Amino acid sequence: MTISMRESERIAAVDEAWISRAQAHLDVLTKPLGSLGRLEELAARVVAIQQSTSPSVDRKAVFIFAADHGVTAEGVSAYPSAVTEQMVLNFLRGGAAINVLARAAGAEVHVIDVGVDAQVEHPGFKSRKVRRGTRNFLYEPALSSEEVRSALGVGAEIAEEAHACGLQIVALGEMGIGNTTAASAITAALTGQSAALVTGVGTGITGATFDRKKSVVDGAMALHFPDRAGLSPAPLEVLRCVGGLEIAAMCGFVLAAARHRMAVVLDGFIATSAAALAFSMEPAVRGYLFAGHLSQERGHRYLLELIGLRPLLDLAMRLGEGSGAVLALGIIESAVRVYNEMATFDSAGVSKAL
Amino acid sequence: MTISMRESERIAAVDEAWISRAQAHLDVLTKPLGSLGRLEELAARVVAIQQSTSPSVDRKAVFIFAADHGVTAEGVSAYPSAVTEQMVLNFLRGGAAINVLARAAGAEVHVIDVGVDAQVEHPGFKSRKVRRGTRNFLYEPALSSEEVRSALGVGAEIAEEAHACGLQIVALGEMGIGNTTAASAITAALTGQSAALVTGVGTGITGATFDRKKSVVDGAMALHFPDRAGLSPAPLEVLRCVGGLEIAAMCGFVLAAARHRMAVVLDGFIATSAAALAFSMEPAVRGYLFAGHLSQERGHRYLLELIGLRPLLDLAMRLGEGSGAVLALGIIESAVRVYNEMATFDSAGVSKAL
Repeated sequence: MTISMRESERIAAVDEAWISRAQAHLDVLTKPLGSLGRLEELAARVVAIQQSTSPSVDRKAVFIFAADHGVTAEGVSAYPSAVTEQMVLNFLRGGAAINVLARAAGAEVHVIDVGVDAQVEHPGFKSRKVRRGTRNFLYEPALSSEEVRSALGVGAEIAEEAHACGLQIVALGEMGIGNTTAASAITAALTGQSAALVTGVGTGITGATFDRKKSVVDGAMALHFPDRAGLSPAPLEVLRCVGGLEIAAMCGFVLAAARHRMAVVLDGFIATSAAALAFSMEPAVRGYLFAGHLSQERGHRYLLELIGLRPLLDLAMRLGEGSGAVLALGIIESAVRVYNEMATFDSAGVSKAL
Repeated sequence: MTISMRESERIAAVDEAWISRAQAHLDVLTKPLGSLGRLEELAARVVAIQQSTSPSVDRKAVFIFAADHGVTAEGVSAYPSAVTEQMVLNFLRGGAAINVLARAAGAEVHVIDVGVDAQVEHPGFKSRKVRRGTRNFLYEPALSSEEVRSALGVGAEIAEEAHACGLQIVALGEMGIGNTTAASAITAALTGQSAALVTGVGTGITGATFDRKKSVVDGAMALHFPDRAGLSPAPLEVLRCVGGLEIAAMCGFVLAAARHRMAVVLDGFIATSAAALAFSMEPAVRGYLFAGHLSQERGHRYLLELIGLRPLLDLAMRLGEGSGAVLALGIIESAVRVYNEMATFDSAGVSKAL
């Protein structure tokens, strides 16, 4: 399987010279050198991504990709599949956690159907359904190569629209009952770690359900990637065998966003699994990515390590929807404002260090 | 030394029944149980502090207490003492990091002079100067008992004004060249830890200056608290011997804020040293306190452990001014909005866990 010419255009790494230039400005602001810690790192990276000494993240939105998962037939979730559609409607009516957090952050909410197993009718809903849910990857590939390509294309298109609308930073979230099982399988495939290490409790499963989930991930590895401990499988193959439609779309979104120099804030485990796949295709995406938070899902840290990202928040969250990403938007916005608005030692008449 | 009747009025512990009541509401919102992690804990605590099922932190401000320190004569800081006054003017003109962060958080900024070693003239400045800086605690007590009492009273008064104005949450910050040395001495006195463990780099000192700072803290312990490894000294004695005027004021502020059921968000090492003293006087203050962030100052974690607080953010910051506290306000506000604004499973027609 190959990807199209346009999708495979190289992504330019974030320019270190811009980072240094930004740091030089940060160093003349009225504060001890480096004393704003990661806020300085965030501001410098936004400057470098935007290649502008007047960075801005005022125009921001969260994109929630939704899809269902055939693997739920194995009883791996605490919730029935119908909840994917029900929660999508909750997003569209403004009652979910992500709506509240996005309002607090001043971010728009966009919900995209890439594969919900229902006919959702709502004027606010972007329908780009590729198929109704994935196949059960315990027994067969979750998607065909064509479906993977379509879902990647949906994500890329949405990122291009976001860029064309002038969005400056985007948070990435998802909804899909069963998708922590897919993300665990992706993590096992990409990192070579055991199912036991990368499979978490998802929506809050326990006991036999949790054991079943781990054995499903183990079974999927045995079926699709028996040799993963040696050579790590190709990311497109991982998407085809154990991926999700929303995960493929987020992967396409990350690639296109980076190509358009748009900062992307990742949510937790599932969004990061998509970003890890994008990183495996194009390592230069890393410079455009911010890890919003560290999820309670135990596989998340392996993916962050793989990409080389340090999470901004660690608030014991495990909701998804983009909730951790949107919370982190406020921190990034504060960092950018510090860069733009603080006085310098000279302008404020403050003495420098002895 | 004793404190006045009014100051010693008992503080009521935050009521666990209100926490449970808040959690019961959080548990019917459209999200897996507990999946918002610490956001749920924050919301429940605000509900319990305010004893209201419609909690609000819309009205918020940061209070910055400023004062100078005689111990700067020992060459313990990277900056001259004059920077305290210069930074106070920077705060009043809106050019400092705290001004930018407070604007981003929608919080008012109030600056209170409890002991700046200069005559600061500015219409926005609350002058409650107790004396021009502390004495050098390497050789003598930093303050008299009367001065401690006055500074505690200043903080209590400011908290009472804040409460009377209807503020619902307050962030606590400070400015005072030399005050990490005072906070290190307070930490050594309260926790019994060695100077080497609790003394950090402050504004960014290195080598001989850092060694000198540690030996000053050691010397102060030998002079004032030679027996601290056994019985921990009384908090008022700690303030008198090695405290700071802004630290005493913040301590008084915390006590009065808790008495008025006002949530207080602590900044880093110095604000937390004041809170640790307040906690040593009245352990019930803990329930009203939020640790905004974990500072890079190495003594900070000992104080957080002493009080029993887990920091919300860990962004490698070490600026003070209230910067970490104000950044955390956004997180707490988001948590409160989740509590107030999310749909329930019933209202949204979302299926519950299987």
